[in-house]
Amino acid sequence: MEAIPLQDLSRLCIHTITTRPWSLDDSIRHYSAAGVAGISVWRQAIEGLDAVAAGRRIREAGMVVVSLVRGGFYPAREKKDRRKAIEENLRIIDEAAALGAPHVVLVCGAVPGQSLEESRRQIREGIQATLAHAKAAGVKLAIEPLHPMYADSRSAVNTLAQANDMAEAIDSPLVGVAVDVYHLWWDPELEQQVRRCGRLGKILAFHICDWRTPTQDLLYDRGLMGEGCIPIRRIRGWVESAGFAGFNEVEIFSTARWTQDQERWLQEILRAYKEAS
Amino acid sequence: MEAIPLQDLSRLCIHTITTRPWSLDDSIRHYSAAGVAGISVWRQAIEGLDAVAAGRRIREAGMVVVSLVRGGFYPAREKKDRRKAIEENLRIIDEAAALGAPHVVLVCGAVPGQSLEESRRQIREGIQATLAHAKAAGVKLAIEPLHPMYADSRSAVNTLAQANDMAEAIDSPLVGVAVDVYHLWWDPELEQQVRRCGRLGKILAFHICDWRTPTQDLLYDRGLMGEGCIPIRRIRGWVESAGFAGFNEVEIFSTARWTQDQERWLQEILRAYKEAS
Repeated sequence: MEAIPLQDLSRLCIHTITTRPWSLDDSIRHYSAAGVAGISVWRQAIEGLDAVAAGRRIREAGMVVVSLVRGGFYPAREKKDRRKAIEENLRIIDEAAALGAPHVVLVCGAVPGQSLEESRRQIREGIQATLAHAKAAGVKLAIEPLHPMYADSRSAVNTLAQANDMAEAIDSPLVGVAVDVYHLWWDPELEQQVRRCGRLGKILAFHICDWRTPTQDLLYDRGLMGEGCIPIRRIRGWVESAGFAGFNEVEIFSTARWTQDQERWLQEILRAYKEAS
Repeated sequence: MEAIPLQDLSRLCIHTITTRPWSLDDSIRHYSAAGVAGISVWRQAIEGLDAVAAGRRIREAGMVVVSLVRGGFYPAREKKDRRKAIEENLRIIDEAAALGAPHVVLVCGAVPGQSLEESRRQIREGIQATLAHAKAAGVKLAIEPLHPMYADSRSAVNTLAQANDMAEAIDSPLVGVAVDVYHLWWDPELEQQVRRCGRLGKILAFHICDWRTPTQDLLYDRGLMGEGCIPIRRIRGWVESAGFAGFNEVEIFSTARWTQDQERWLQEILRAYKEAS
């Protein structure tokens, strides 16, 4: 069953990468003025900034920090590089805590030519190695399954079933899943796996955007909701039926959109959020 | 278990699209001179030619016609357009029979924005509507599951499990499956579904190439075997263990390769076939 149309912006969150040309303070000012309730902060947006102060400015502007994006990238051929990745993830967890983000989104990683099974084993080890630190920091970790077109180098976790399997195997209240329609819309098992994720109590985040036809670039040609073929409202219905009541996070990488006027782009996002999400 | 390295070219087939700048007769001459045993003919390569005569020239050059590529594209919003697609597929079956190709590879189709379930229903109807004709012509139909990045507009069949389900549901000796490593390598269920496909007696074709990192284009940046991250020999091992003893078909769409000298490109294919397939 489709979700009911969104009447207001109280559950709208925008990822800072969506308005990439803006600084964090630009994003805070424009989002909050527009009535956007939540913000997911990309690490690049706080590079060189004081994360505690950044989090305070977001809350003072009346917004919620929904997540820090992104940790992960655990797999590597050499043990010393896997150790470095774990150390980097410990720093990311600290950043999330400083910012006041309840969770870090994990792009789990993959090494071209290394078997996906081995990469998944390394991902699981990497996550487990950071759990004590995440617990102490009060920060959860959201495994984000990525579209199979990223299986070569970005993530060996490519379906919601795999993310659920991994979260279930790790079996920690700190580890959940981020459901992104761009990565998962095509999956014939999606409805069933969303239900399973809900039963497990693991849905930490819900990301929206659209799939354009034709898609011109594997990374930077995501569409605004309504511009593509993803049944966003239907998937949102499944996610809500599974018990999720958090933010609908708009996360759009688009070279074309980043070159247009960002204030106008923001207005287009607000309209598409209500009309096509 | 990995397959044993290929010692000779007796099971090598090349798709004419791989050497796109060549005419069919160029391909026949160069492939046969190089010792290539099989050829899969793309429809574009015989456009305007007499298919019976083309098939005869291939056989006279000592090669086998492995398949005609490609039929399918059944889904459409309007019934009259689905009817047209079926009529086109009847002509394609006739072309395959004229050429002497034992099967047609099906890129099943999808309509942006139409639900994938509905597209799959239309695909199944489309295939079933051509079965009597295929039987009379002695031509089989090979459902090719396509990578999920093509689910918007090229195929609503995106995993081997789905192709197996559809072939099993149609339940005709005329309908089987084409296994292409490019589309399926990432799938955690691949080994199991290859076994299932073998048990069903449905593996009609095996296509090889590689996945480059980074991939620059969704359509025309496939890699030569060994240039990417696909465990081709491992997957070939599964396919052979499942009972398949047919051709290893090299099918590479690559703008970069199409602009290089095609004779040299052919030599690179032969070397990669033995070293990395």
